[in-house]
Amino acid sequence: MTQAAESLAREPILLREDDNGITTLTLNRPRQYNTLSEAMLTALHDTLKDIEQDDSVRVVILAGAGKAYCAGHDLKEMRARPDQEYYRELFRKCSEMMLTMNRIPQPIIARVHGIATAAGCQLVATADLAVASTEASFATSGINVGLFCATPGVPLSRNILRKHAMEMLLTGEFISAEGAARLGLVNRAVEPGLLDEQVMSLARHITDRSPVAVRTGKQMFYRQIDKELESAYDFAAEVMACNMMAEDAAEGIDAFIEKRDPVWRGR
Amino acid sequence: MTQAAESLAREPILLREDDNGITTLTLNRPRQYNTLSEAMLTALHDTLKDIEQDDSVRVVILAGAGKAYCAGHDLKEMRARPDQEYYRELFRKCSEMMLTMNRIPQPIIARVHGIATAAGCQLVATADLAVASTEASFATSGINVGLFCATPGVPLSRNILRKHAMEMLLTGEFISAEGAARLGLVNRAVEPGLLDEQVMSLARHITDRSPVAVRTGKQMFYRQIDKELESAYDFAAEVMACNMMAEDAAEGIDAFIEKRDPVWRGR
Amino acid sequence: MTQAAESLAREPILLREDDNGITTLTLNRPRQYNTLSEAMLTALHDTLKDIEQDDSVRVVILAGAGKAYCAGHDLKEMRARPDQEYYRELFRKCSEMMLTMNRIPQPIIARVHGIATAAGCQLVATADLAVASTEASFATSGINVGLFCATPGVPLSRNILRKHAMEMLLTGEFISAEGAARLGLVNRAVEPGLLDEQVMSLARHITDRSPVAVRTGKQMFYRQIDKELESAYDFAAEVMACNMMAEDAAEGIDAFIEKRDPVWRGR
Repeated sequence: MTQAAESLAREPILLREDDNGITTLTLNRPRQYNTLSEAMLTALHDTLKDIEQDDSVRVVILAGAGKAYCAGHDLKEMRARPDQEYYRELFRKCSEMMLTMNRIPQPIIARVHGIATAAGCQLVATADLAVASTEASFATSGINVGLFCATPGVPLSRNILRKHAMEMLLTGEFISAEGAARLGLVNRAVEPGLLDEQVMSLARHITDRSPVAVRTGKQMFYRQIDKELESAYDFAAEVMACNMMAEDAAEGIDAFIEKRDPVWRGR
Repeated sequence: MTQAAESLAREPILLREDDNGITTLTLNRPRQYNTLSEAMLTALHDTLKDIEQDDSVRVVILAGAGKAYCAGHDLKEMRARPDQEYYRELFRKCSEMMLTMNRIPQPIIARVHGIATAAGCQLVATADLAVASTEASFATSGINVGLFCATPGVPLSRNILRKHAMEMLLTGEFISAEGAARLGLVNRAVEPGLLDEQVMSLARHITDRSPVAVRTGKQMFYRQIDKELESAYDFAAEVMACNMMAEDAAEGIDAFIEKRDPVWRGR
Repeated sequence: MTQAAESLAREPILLREDDNGITTLTLNRPRQYNTLSEAMLTALHDTLKDIEQDDSVRVVILAGAGKAYCAGHDLKEMRARPDQEYYRELFRKCSEMMLTMNRIPQPIIARVHGIATAAGCQLVATADLAVASTEASFATSGINVGLFCATPGVPLSRNILRKHAMEMLLTGEFISAEGAARLGLVNRAVEPGLLDEQVMSLARHITDRSPVAVRTGKQMFYRQIDKELESAYDFAAEVMACNMMAEDAAEGIDAFIEKRDPVWRGR
């Protein structure tokens, strides 16, 4: 290993920056295209579990350092341990991290500046919102190496239409950021120079809202979506009744009626 | 209250006009932006329950009087009763009305001419079909007043793709009628001057079809959609076998084979 | 019957051509617009069951001979037996054939060159992928003859957004190939002269991939899609762990790391 490589390997694998309720997590193994190695999965999972308990974090931006966004699993690491039980644990661990992204109360915005492949594309599908630079591109490319993107297929097939998901999964072909926006995989594709501005604008939209309402909302969204219609309504009606009892709802509605800006207390 | 306001308040809260199988319901509290007050919810629910039993109604158009389509719940009315049990009942009542829109055998077309926010946007998502004027706009804006649009999120997340639903719900931002058409929230956006023509054309398309087939179809659609694939097919195959035994199917198929127009008996 | 008609009726109802892992099935009753008569359903079902067991078939193209792609059920045949038990069996048989399309491990590409109506449109919705010529058009037209397209509605409402599915099912109106591509009913619409080239390109994309990965992938897709999120992830993680133990995954990943082309063994 060269000195430069050694120094890079000593850098934290996941960077965290907290700024006024907006926490940016940056996958920080640019030379490995930010692959979801065991170490990266652990760092992401542990950091998300910390954030889950941290009311000062209102929204999370998930970014990547270097040229790529995230190239999926670390194939070299995987090939070094050809053992089914090991793989079972690895994919469970990865799935658990993805489920944690859905479970934490703070919305997650994927800031996609480069290629997002396989489990990297899954990060984008799993995030609540996603903004892509026109330099980004997306593929569920496992099929190209003989490994069907089964776990990435789970959020992909729940985020975009079936024929589109099937084509991505079976062909492994790249789609552009504009294509991803048309399919609904990302909310929008923007010029590279506008990526940060657009991501921050979306993040600030959320931090300007009541923390109670945002937290309530993100969590209810995933809890209701797999229920059948009547159960979903029963659950949602109960959630709204609770939300109405929050100080923020009283303040928000009073401010609206009195035509003034609300002051959120976060409770 | 001025005399004009008093006279408006005495007008029926929901107008009903029946014309050749097409029933137009018009939310008629223009000064309150047609909010879904308790009185409005009751009027809608009761009228839909009447329509459910009325074979002369073949299709329902849901319209709004005045500048707005529907601005969601009546926030003043809600704030006047800060009681969780009251809210629970209110959201149950609203959800029950929305479920009734899905349950009645007649298709409902939302005729959206102005803003449709929060539960007003939910009306559009819940309707079977929707046509919007380019002057309409849409938002699940509860988040702006500290009250996440949980119940509107139920049909929204079942009508449009996830990232789009999440963005609307978390930001509360307005989208245009053209945007709503792109997302699939409405079937199409048309020039204001063409709104009635387009809504009526869609309605007449439906009244020209066999009442048995339309009724069968709308009801089977919602009953099968939450089932898993095999159960959905079992159910649908049974529905089609029944439909084939109807006089209208025999007449329709014979007319098709004989290259003539069918005469529907409605049974 | 003229001599020409007699000779046509003696032709196989379903043509099969096998070429390097790509099997093309052609509905071959052009004068009947390739309707899904009992004989056609039996031929399709039996051939798909053979293909299911045949590892030499890697991808299936489903085409139609003559002017139309497929005009749905054979209405004359149906009207000749006005018996509910008969219809029940017929729709069960048709649904079983459609489910078999989902169950076989080989991806199916619909090659749609002309009109695809009712159960013909269902074939397109049920196929894993679909490419349409701009001369094709699509309708769930049962409603026009008094017979709501209930079984076609099952895959349609799982492939495209709800408002779009509802409009097609309730109005029976034709949509163009470009419209079908916008709704996600087909993957793309292409000039008639490019249809074969585009279908073959998609097919070869799939035959160039590892047979294990493709087979694993198509089958896991439908098995996970009706599960709730956590169960879907449990299942998908197990599928990936198994797929990782396949020789093809080892070869594919090693080839990727060594920057060479993989040689698939199909196991």
